[in-house]
Amino acid sequence: MIVKPSILPGTMELLPHEQLIFNKMKDIIRETYELFAFLPIDTPALEKTEILLAKGGGETEKQIYNIANTSTETSLRFDLTVPLARYVSMHEHELKFPFKRYQIAKVYRGERNQKGRYREFYQCDCDIIGDEKLSKFYDAELVKIISIIFRKFGFDKFTIMINNRNIMNGFLKSQGVEDTVEAVRALDKYDKIGRDSLEELLINQGIKADSVKNIIDLIEFEGTNEETIAHLEGLGIDNEIFLKGLAEMKEVLENIKLFNVDKNNYKFTLKLQRGLDYYTSTVIETVLDDYKELGSVAGGGSYENLTQFYSKRELPGVGISIGLTRLFFQLSEKNILPKFESEEKSFLVAPLDIDMSYAISVLNELHELGANSEVLYSKMKMKKIFDFAESYSFDYIIFLGQEELENKKLSVRDLNSKENISISIDELKTLIK
Amino acid sequence: MIVKPSILPGTMELLPHEQLIFNKMKDIIRETYELFAFLPIDTPALEKTEILLAKGGGETEKQIYNIANTSTETSLRFDLTVPLARYVSMHEHELKFPFKRYQIAKVYRGERNQKGRYREFYQCDCDIIGDEKLSKFYDAELVKIISIIFRKFGFDKFTIMINNRNIMNGFLKSQGVEDTVEAVRALDKYDKIGRDSLEELLINQGIKADSVKNIIDLIEFEGTNEETIAHLEGLGIDNEIFLKGLAEMKEVLENIKLFNVDKNNYKFTLKLQRGLDYYTSTVIETVLDDYKELGSVAGGGSYENLTQFYSKRELPGVGISIGLTRLFFQLSEKNILPKFESEEKSFLVAPLDIDMSYAISVLNELHELGANSEVLYSKMKMKKIFDFAESYSFDYIIFLGQEELENKKLSVRDLNSKENISISIDELKTLIK
Repeated sequence: MIVKPSILPGTMELLPHEQLIFNKMKDIIRETYELFAFLPIDTPALEKTEILLAKGGGETEKQIYNIANTSTETSLRFDLTVPLARYVSMHEHELKFPFKRYQIAKVYRGERNQKGRYREFYQCDCDIIGDEKLSKFYDAELVKIISIIFRKFGFDKFTIMINNRNIMNGFLKSQGVEDTVEAVRALDKYDKIGRDSLEELLINQGIKADSVKNIIDLIEFEGTNEETIAHLEGLGIDNEIFLKGLAEMKEVLENIKLFNVDKNNYKFTLKLQRGLDYYTSTVIETVLDDYKELGSVAGGGSYENLTQFYSKRELPGVGISIGLTRLFFQLSEKNILPKFESEEKSFLVAPLDIDMSYAISVLNELHELGANSEVLYSKMKMKKIFDFAESYSFDYIIFLGQEELENKKLSVRDLNSKENISISIDELKTLIK
Repeated sequence: MIVKPSILPGTMELLPHEQLIFNKMKDIIRETYELFAFLPIDTPALEKTEILLAKGGGETEKQIYNIANTSTETSLRFDLTVPLARYVSMHEHELKFPFKRYQIAKVYRGERNQKGRYREFYQCDCDIIGDEKLSKFYDAELVKIISIIFRKFGFDKFTIMINNRNIMNGFLKSQGVEDTVEAVRALDKYDKIGRDSLEELLINQGIKADSVKNIIDLIEFEGTNEETIAHLEGLGIDNEIFLKGLAEMKEVLENIKLFNVDKNNYKFTLKLQRGLDYYTSTVIETVLDDYKELGSVAGGGSYENLTQFYSKRELPGVGISIGLTRLFFQLSEKNILPKFESEEKSFLVAPLDIDMSYAISVLNELHELGANSEVLYSKMKMKKIFDFAESYSFDYIIFLGQEELENKKLSVRDLNSKENISISIDELKTLIK
């Protein structure tokens, strides 16, 4: 009996030519994290349910996938932060701090079935976990990391938006707002609902009309990073939290300069709120300038205590996350997937009516030189050979016929330049960058 | 409330210094598969249960992890072969054949809880799928691939055992055995139970005493590959399946020679049976010569029809699989994990009582040069700096104090050679291989 082959909705599966681009993007993220000496960890996808729900249920509990047939209650992780917290708590005496870790792996969420929503998707996270305190240079490192990654993806027009949650929290306090969490949650909607509706929301929260005006004026402030700092300093707010946030923000901005991040690629903006997150100080979101409608393509922030549900020790952290599956889908929909030039050239060896031994000696030589390559052992028509090579992204075809065998030559077709050349085996290395 | 942090039994989680070795092994496997132009695919870990169980239940059905809360019956994959079959069937019109694919990913099985048994573990598979027929050169490629991987792991004493199932099947037929599957399953136990018990088993299957003797004599035959071939040819067996198997085996052995595999690393052996598998022709298993007790560390074989449960098209294949999680555990237990020299040097920058800007300019230069590196932004005692560097496998520490700042020098400690040197920023590149 034949079962019709299909995959679950909400999972991504690519054809090889797309997968190569996806993997290259994944490799760029990995290499950049490693460049900054982040260490890899690889936690199990299966975790005890009690670990995943230690923070308390809510949205998470509804979205979590549970395993039906295990004696210990078991679920699939829904992010990489909870497993990191569990890992650090479990190994706190074996790890040295500051602990820089990255993890690039799939996570699972029972999302509604909808285009572009994934139930199984990659998160690419890097975090720095400190012991009691953590330098604000790490916040700057993370901004540099995002800028390297997106430049390697081929984008130069993007903005890493940065803010510090203490600024607004302190400002709200200075305006007599009690429930700052609820207010921030409203402010986070500014982009979607606009000034008038936001005013109404805040008024309904019991905030005085002139405070509401001050608050919205503040998030509407536009200026350079220096102007925004000057504006905040000019407000003359004497709230401790506000001043702490402002000082931290100034420090982060000064630090970013030391990392030589292009000034067009980052911006201190009071609009950025991330109302629903657990971030406590720096918050980061990244948009592609020409495709702002995609929303944030890389985000993060700092938090006071990573391990509060698993350990008594206080371990603050700061990190970023790139949702690669969703990003790949979005770029693909917009037809702006990165086009990578193959750094290492690949070869398809096509023997034409000759014994395989010559072809395999060429293959062995290519492998010695480290070039990805294969031999077509079965006879194929010329058109099929070209289709095969194109479809699997080979850079060269090496044709070997009777004449090549006798003269110990290789007839090489460069599929990028469309040129044909004739070389000896010894000259192969000149084609491999 | 604090939840005690722990992981599920049967899952592997490593500390960073172990994870680096694990990842290096994974990278070696990936690079070697790519060297032979295998293409990556990345199928979802979650599959429809009907896909996974299309072949029929049995052991599989008992071991499969089902998701409790999904509308479509969903399970975690238990291997990478069933997803490959589903993938190839789904995309058969978009793929070109021969299709060389690799997949390195976790699979899930509800194994009994026992040391060294994993419920979540990596499989590293590569397979070549042909359209109707498949060259026997691929079988030889796979032997070459295993030999490259284990040499890169630092082993040179290993044996890739090769056999062809048609030889024994045909021989059994020639000895009047009806149920060859049952007989082969018994033969597979030879190593464990020895000749006498095996004789009894076969007699009990209703095989005549002189046939039993012939059969066991055959699997006990010891000799070089050439002697084994000569022995089989000398038996004068006129069974079609036997002769087919012998011809295929000779072909594969001739092909392996063309790939220059060290003759100490592969062996045609009639003992290798793999009674429980779905392989139909070539079978492969690999043992470490000095650690035979570990069992097979890499195995595979060829099969007639990959996609029989999902497509009417006949697509034969041949492939290998390395169970990396189990292998890592075994090597670790024996204390013979590979020791990799870091190809790319990593740097820990330790500023001593100076402003961070000099340290970050050194870091920027290291990153420009592509060297993995980080700055210790918080003050640490000298001993702690060395502990940190050792624990996270750095190759160099760069100390930057007032003197280094004034002379624009770097005091570098080489943690491998234990030497101290003083260089300028421009000379950094000489340390980076």
